[in-house]
Amino acid sequence: MTLFNARVTVTLKNGVLDPQGKAIEGSLSALGFAGVEQVRQGKVFAVTLNADSKKSAIQSLNSMCEKLLANTVIEDYAVEIVA
Amino acid sequence: MTLFNARVTVTLKNGVLDPQGKAIEGSLSALGFAGVEQVRQGKVFAVTLNADSKKSAIQSLNSMCEKLLANTVIEDYAVEIVA
Repeated sequence: MTLFNARVTVTLKNGVLDPQGKAIEGSLSALGFAGVEQVRQGKVFAVTLNADSKKSAIQSLNSMCEKLLANTVIEDYAVEIVA
Repeated sequence: MTLFNARVTVTLKNGVLDPQGKAIEGSLSALGFAGVEQVRQGKVFAVTLNADSKKSAIQSLNSMCEKLLANTVIEDYAVEIVA
């Protein structure tokens, strides 16, 4: 068993409305930041897990995303092993 | 002016309690995922912005983090230009 540090990023699919991102766009513009075209907000999870291999760690993380971390109807996810 | 796609990641500093991460740890374990040592949740912002150069885009994004996107008392941020 090896300890892996993974980063799971969950973002809204294209076409799904993101009111929180829109609010941030508005606030940035009100603070004087010009040139911001779009902001979309997502979630990131830093997961530390034990697994037999990098491959099995990634399989396990994908399964966590399908079952808990992401709502796959409206969200995409990406899994990276950081170390 | 060039259009840059940036990714801003905001995570809790080490030592700051993360009850949401703890809840996810508990849920993963209840779902039968063994070997998860720690989960910490953060935020990710996909920002599309116009800037004169990559350097000025990064400066602008750091300033956005200091002023709005991150609470620098308890959170760290990282800025990457994706494309």
